[in-house]
Amino acid sequence: MTELALVAALAKRLPRIGDDCAIVPHGPEDLLFTTDLLVEDVHFRRAERTAADVGYRALARSLSDIAAMGGEPRWATVALALPPWATGRWVAGFYDGLIALAAQHRTEVVGGDFSRALALTADVMVCGTAPKGQALRRDRARPGDLIYVSGPLGRGKWRFPPRLALGQQLRKLGATSCMDLSDGLSLDLHRLAVASRVAADLHTVPLARGASLSDGLHRGEDYELLFTLPPGAKPPRLTHAIGRILRGQPGLVTYNGGQVTPDGHDHFRSQPHPRTP
Amino acid sequence: MTELALVAALAKRLPRIGDDCAIVPHGPEDLLFTTDLLVEDVHFRRAERTAADVGYRALARSLSDIAAMGGEPRWATVALALPPWATGRWVAGFYDGLIALAAQHRTEVVGGDFSRALALTADVMVCGTAPKGQALRRDRARPGDLIYVSGPLGRGKWRFPPRLALGQQLRKLGATSCMDLSDGLSLDLHRLAVASRVAADLHTVPLARGASLSDGLHRGEDYELLFTLPPGAKPPRLTHAIGRILRGQPGLVTYNGGQVTPDGHDHFRSQPHPRTP
Repeated sequence: MTELALVAALAKRLPRIGDDCAIVPHGPEDLLFTTDLLVEDVHFRRAERTAADVGYRALARSLSDIAAMGGEPRWATVALALPPWATGRWVAGFYDGLIALAAQHRTEVVGGDFSRALALTADVMVCGTAPKGQALRRDRARPGDLIYVSGPLGRGKWRFPPRLALGQQLRKLGATSCMDLSDGLSLDLHRLAVASRVAADLHTVPLARGASLSDGLHRGEDYELLFTLPPGAKPPRLTHAIGRILRGQPGLVTYNGGQVTPDGHDHFRSQPHPRTP
Repeated sequence: MTELALVAALAKRLPRIGDDCAIVPHGPEDLLFTTDLLVEDVHFRRAERTAADVGYRALARSLSDIAAMGGEPRWATVALALPPWATGRWVAGFYDGLIALAAQHRTEVVGGDFSRALALTADVMVCGTAPKGQALRRDRARPGDLIYVSGPLGRGKWRFPPRLALGQQLRKLGATSCMDLSDGLSLDLHRLAVASRVAADLHTVPLARGASLSDGLHRGEDYELLFTLPPGAKPPRLTHAIGRILRGQPGLVTYNGGQVTPDGHDHFRSQPHPRTP
């Protein structure tokens, strides 16, 4: 069973599942909730990463979900299941990496839990806020909108910077849809197009140095923002127009008219990509 | 390294850690955050539990933390790391158990994540609310207060009922402190006494059928509420007065004057208790 199939089955029972974060009206703002697992030998190998690198990324992935909604991250909880090799010093290093990133984005770590485990497993929940009704979503792209990404693709950095300032700017700018590129452009754009019941045609893919077109289309873990703007809207600096939203078969993604098969990264099924630097 | 040592080291860096939930002022109410891990072969063995039992308990433990603060649970996120044996059917059963309990307590599952793993690991975060400044804490017990528990101890049920209604009643009643009994009376009362900088003398321990005094004092996983009321306050029905808060060495727990060594359940260090029915 793939993660897509599991999520599809659940989405019928849990209506808020679908965007990068759940949007919950409460008090003067909307609350945004997201949670992300980082598992040894699925998402990383311990020989290749410092404790601080693991802590950084465990939080960065959830912050990226908040960025995709145009939200402001506020509070985080951290659950850590620790195998015998994870010493107190390792845990301190993990929190060094995590807390430094949290401080950069004024996010407070408010709680956590520890357990023993066979393999290191970190789950980081972030709760953020957005002005009422204004969080960016992936189901509002309209035919004619231009499609953008926030940076070159195909060579995701381990310590990527969550695009929080850009997400907030896009919310103010009236972006019609937004999501973060965690699983590869072809799969993530397909999801956005399914949610918005539109088709999408790419005309270019900005590639990171050393990345192939296939990397740029299908490799996950870039954590750039994928978003749409109405025609005529001025895009933020350093973003790249890559295509256009079309009326058409919901979810269909083409590249200069030729069909692109959604073939991104499914953490549930696949090994971590060996080349993430 | 024990969980106690890990948490103690972290508490210096993360000031909100200490109660069953973090209390965060926001909007018209306070938000309460808690997260709890449930790990195969640490907290349960799969041969002994149905998927629905595991889902029930994964959520119940976090709800119990909300109960301990006198809060109302509102939203939950669920992260599931799944080993190869966990089929789609197992995952559906897990959610059956979890969602049924969530519905009972009007808690909405708003998000989640999946990953592969070696052993099944569930992390359930619950965010609840409490009226501003009124959440129950463990650091406000005062000399002279009477100590209570919400039920007989020593034989925790796997599908225990989180004491949410009682917690809210205690908040309205002006309980001076409250926490849930997850790790055994001796250890949890010690923690409450440390936080409140008081000593505690027990005069009785209500025992569940078949439980020894040692079970009642030291065995974890009862998930009853431990709370204190000012002298003269009328306790809720079906609760048991078990002792009194004293001026004295902070954290000292005695039983009719004889010292009780805090010796509860540390999930980080120990095996699951073999007798939880």
